[in-house]
This record gives sequence, C-alpha cells and structure tokens, in this order.
Amino acid sequence: MNKYWSETIKGITPYVPGEQPRAGRLVKLNTNENPYPPSPEVLEAMKAAVTDKLRLYPDPNCSRLREAASRLYGIPAEQIFAGNGSDEILAFCFKAFFDPGDTILFPDITYNFYEVYADLFGVSYRTVPLTENFEVSASEFSSDNDGIILANPNAPTGKTLSLEDLETLIQSNRQAVVIIDEAYIDFGGESSIGLIPKYDNLLVIRTFSKSRSLAGLRIGLAMGNRSLIEALIRVRDCINCFTVDWIAQAGAIASLEDTGTFSHYIGRITATRGRMTEYLRDADFHVIDSSTNFLMMSHPFLRAKALYEALREKNIFVRYFPKPRIDNYLRVTIGTDEEMDIFYDAILDIVKNTH
Amino acid sequence: MNKYWSETIKGITPYVPGEQPRAGRLVKLNTNENPYPPSPEVLEAMKAAVTDKLRLYPDPNCSRLREAASRLYGIPAEQIFAGNGSDEILAFCFKAFFDPGDTILFPDITYNFYEVYADLFGVSYRTVPLTENFEVSASEFSSDNDGIILANPNAPTGKTLSLEDLETLIQSNRQAVVIIDEAYIDFGGESSIGLIPKYDNLLVIRTFSKSRSLAGLRIGLAMGNRSLIEALIRVRDCINCFTVDWIAQAGAIASLEDTGTFSHYIGRITATRGRMTEYLRDADFHVIDSSTNFLMMSHPFLRAKALYEALREKNIFVRYFPKPRIDNYLRVTIGTDEEMDIFYDAILDIVKNTH
Repeated sequence: MNKYWSETIKGITPYVPGEQPRAGRLVKLNTNENPYPPSPEVLEAMKAAVTDKLRLYPDPNCSRLREAASRLYGIPAEQIFAGNGSDEILAFCFKAFFDPGDTILFPDITYNFYEVYADLFGVSYRTVPLTENFEVSASEFSSDNDGIILANPNAPTGKTLSLEDLETLIQSNRQAVVIIDEAYIDFGGESSIGLIPKYDNLLVIRTFSKSRSLAGLRIGLAMGNRSLIEALIRVRDCINCFTVDWIAQAGAIASLEDTGTFSHYIGRITATRGRMTEYLRDADFHVIDSSTNFLMMSHPFLRAKALYEALREKNIFVRYFPKPRIDNYLRVTIGTDEEMDIFYDAILDIVKNTH
Repeated sequence: MNKYWSETIKGITPYVPGEQPRAGRLVKLNTNENPYPPSPEVLEAMKAAVTDKLRLYPDPNCSRLREAASRLYGIPAEQIFAGNGSDEILAFCFKAFFDPGDTILFPDITYNFYEVYADLFGVSYRTVPLTENFEVSASEFSSDNDGIILANPNAPTGKTLSLEDLETLIQSNRQAVVIIDEAYIDFGGESSIGLIPKYDNLLVIRTFSKSRSLAGLRIGLAMGNRSLIEALIRVRDCINCFTVDWIAQAGAIASLEDTGTFSHYIGRITATRGRMTEYLRDADFHVIDSSTNFLMMSHPFLRAKALYEALREKNIFVRYFPKPRIDNYLRVTIGTDEEMDIFYDAILDIVKNTH
C-alpha cells in the first residue's frame, strides 16, 4: 500500500540505527553512546535556556555556538556550520557538493549511512576495500572521483589513518570535496582540523553524541573553507532554516567550554578500553586496536552472530552487522567499568558454556 | 568561489526567513511568533528533561509525543509523525511523495518555502492564481497533477478555505497526495484532520511555532494515512534518524496536554486581532479578514515598501514581500496589545507625516 510513495522511497533501504530498548535493567553497548553524563555545567546552561524566549525562533546561524567552537578549534567562526546532529550535516553535504551522476568514494567497511545518503540523493558511489587488516589505503583514493567521505577513526573498525596519509589523500584529490567524519576523534587519532587553512576541499565533521555525552541533544559541526560552509547554509535554507533549537545551542556552547569534565571522562573511557582490550585478548578474543569508544572483536571459533544473540538474552546489547567481511565481528561500546565487567563475565560465560 | 558546489546549489535561491534582529528595544512583528510565552508547565517539563539521560539517543519515533497528539487530535499514534519543525517535515514530503519530473500545484501567493523545496528536489510546479480577493479557487486544483500543497489558512493572505471546498479538492485529486499546511489553523478556520480517516491521500501538517509559542524549540507534526507516515519515516531514516531531541519531545508533550493556557492565549491574540483590524480600517487601511495571527494590510496611497522602511526606522519590524500581487501589502504579526498600540501609533504617525 504505497501508491503515493516516490520512486526513490519505494526502492530505498533506510539506515537502521542500533536498537534503543526501553526495558529497565540492561547493559546498552550497542550505539556508542557515552556511559558518563554530560557535564553539570552543560545541564545548568540548558536549564537556564528554558525561558520565555522559546517563543522566538532560534538564531538560525548559531552564532554564539560557532564562536565557542572557533575558540576551541582555532578556526574562524565563518568557517563553522552547526546542525541537528552530524547525520543531518552529512545529508546536507550530499546536496551541497554532489549531483546525480557524480561518483563518490568511501571505504567498503565504514559508517553504513554514507550509502543511504547516496541512494537517497541519486549520487553514485564506489567503495574502496580496506586492506586485510582493515586499514584505509589512502593511495587507493586518488583515482577519478567527485568526492570522498572517510570516517577517521573509521567505524566500525575503530582504526585511524595518519595525518600524513590523510594529507596526501586530500592533496591528490583537489578536484573534489574530501569529507572527514571525525565522530570518534576525541577518543584517539589525529584531527585533520589543522589542515583546513591549507586545503579548500577539506570539510571536517564533528558530533556531540559520542565524546560529549549529548546524543540526546542532537548537535553536530562542520568545519572547512568558507565556500563549503556557504554551500551547507544554502542547503539548510532550502530545507529548514532553524535546525538547532535554543536549548541545544546553549548546551553545546557549555560543552565546548567545559574542557575539564570532557577530558576527565575521555580519560576514563580510554582507560577502560585499554583494560578491556587486554582482558579480552587474554581470553583469546581477537580485538582490533581501537582509537574510538568501541571495540571491534571476534572469537577464534564462536560466531559473532551467536555471541550477539546469547548476550542479548542476558540483556546485554552490542552491535552485530550482517555484512561481508565484518559478519564475524561484534562492535562493543565502551561502557562504565561496571558495565564492561558485566559484559566480560557474560561473554566468557557464553564461551565456556558453548564448549 | 564555488567550484565545489553542486549544480543544484549553484542555481538555487534559498528561502529567506524574516529577520531575527538582536537589538534591544524593538517591536518584532515580522515572523509570526507568538507574543505570549510557552505555558509554565511546558517550561517545567523541559527543565525536568534536562538530565543525564541526554547521553542517550532520543526516542527516534517520539512515541510519547505521538501518543499525546493522538489523544488531542483523535488520530491513532501510528498515523502521526513528529519532526524538527514543520519546515523539515514539508521538505521530507518532497522526497517522500514526489519524483523529479513530477508536477505539483500550489497557489501563486502562499508560503514561499514550497517553491524552494521544489527547486531543491527537482520537482516541477505550477502555481494556481488566487482570485482577485486572494481566495483559493478549489476547483482550479482538479487538473492533472502529482501533488498539491495548500496552506490553510493561507499565508501571507490570512484567508481560509472552507472544509467543504477542501474536501472537494481532496476528493477530486485521489491520484496524488494533498498536503494541507495548517500552521495557523489554531487561530481560525476548520481543520481537515477530521477528513483523515476518509482520504488516504490527505496529509495534515502542524507546527508548534505559532499557536504554541515554541518557535525556539522546533517541533512539527504530520498526520495522515499510515502509508504516508511510513514514507516520511523512510525519508527521515535516510537523513537523520533522531530529528527531535529529548527536551523538545518533553516540551511538546506538555504543550499538547496544557489546553487551558493554550486557549487563553489564543483568545487574547484573536481579540487583539479583532480590535486592531477595526482600528486600522477606521484609519483607512485595507485589512484582509484574518484567520491567523497576522494581518495582511495595505494603505490607499502610501506604498507598502515605504511604510515597511519607515516602521523599521522606528525599530518596528514587519514583513514586506517584494512579490507580484502582494508588493503593496504589509504582513503584520499580532503582538501583545501594547506592541500593537505602538505599531498602530507609529503607522498613523507615518501616514500623517507623509501627507
């Protein structure tokens, strides 16, 4: 019963986000949320923004938020764009920089949403295989293309590309926009923000959903040459001029300003990640070195799908992707130490009982 | 310097929203915001939603919000879609229901954003002229088309179409989706929500930015046949699965539940509208009967553009559209009684001093 659907929508496979189960007691390690709360200053700033002013449209350009980002990242405010989550900004990129008939490149194993955007907006894409060790081969991206999207660190592998390799890639693709999705960069790897003044074809995307504990607030940023930012503004003003509400703007500003709490929780997550990587390897799991807030792991003989289902029965949610090359891996978000201990005990228990 | 822009973005003219001036003392009657604050219960609900839970992604389907809307409007929750403002939902409609090459219809004088969406998504459109008195002629919409968008009440004219005429229009266009944009319906006119069970081609759009005093929060709803709602969900899940943040969901629920404050302020606005219409007509202005929270008005010999500029010099912001047929009208949002008195005195002063 879809006689009124557009042809695009009839044919498309939308993105499927990780489950947001509503049950009470569960360990949720499936959508790379931060196990620690937003900083108290962020919550205070949001409460303070709940005023009668909400009757007015928000600042469409998020001026104060962009100024706060400018101070933190050392990029002029005019070179920063704020949106309703980085997913929205990525979608806007497809209308801003690519036309139907264009061919863009991204790795064969990466954030699944890139191919959905391409399908929605009729942009062709070619996937570039990661190496056997799930590394991005920068040199493979220097062929003919109309754009490149790279998640760095990559998801769901958790691996990073060096800044040197990234620069070579950007340099050898001056004909096209290179979008670096730095959703996980605060957990490891080198940011390409420092390359923005040198390359007018570089756009760096950030999200507040992972390292800043604000998935529920919906904030993302794009940084790059002013002309690229202008294109994003044009797309936004053809869809919804006011994408970021007053309260989200206030919370995002406070988040950028509270560097102390931010560093503290990043430190805890990376410490837990190190400990858990070690434990799991000691228990014979293959765990990829992670620069993110998740681990990509597999077991020498138990199938990932079986592990995923067995964990789910114990109310432990992790992510499993039934996709070529990674269908024997689990992607496990780094939770609190307590959550990770529950996960660890559970998975060891499953392994033991399957022998 | 737009070598990286897509062809679509190079050629397009984005929507230009009314100014959001940041100056201190001014009378802002230019973007149809509500002069009264959101209900205290709405503010309380939002503050209560500012919690550690913000580290988690919001409910993508806004289930509780849709249930609250279901209770108020008597439409099943599965037939309701929530988005980040009605503009976003309208944009989604273009991907959901129309393909490039399709031709849709809307009036020649209506919300300017409709043609921007069409241009962005490559959908053709034909405008149907309003009558000399700025009425929608429903019968003119029964020609061959792939979709219809009608604002009811219409903006910026402020006029409504009767439910009977609307039903005839929907009935004679069963081949296509008919989108009724009811942004201003709470201020007057008959809602077409009651027709939803009868017509699977009807989609009704609502916003919280006008009657609900929540322009700064960004909430819109779409209501219609389940298949139409499913198409909108598919588009959303190809762009950004989590469009409405936790705090906005909480505020929107409280707004739908507090019918008392809502009716009280609607009553005040319509009373001010009546009084001001009378005063302005007594002062020789031509004022269209309004079913909205704005007045469309012209003066017998002073040009609207000159009035607009003279008001602006007095820090009174109204809207002027340099477009055929309406370029001698001002669109003036109904503010508080105090604001309207300032506006009234100022415009009379301008008229007097121009004699």
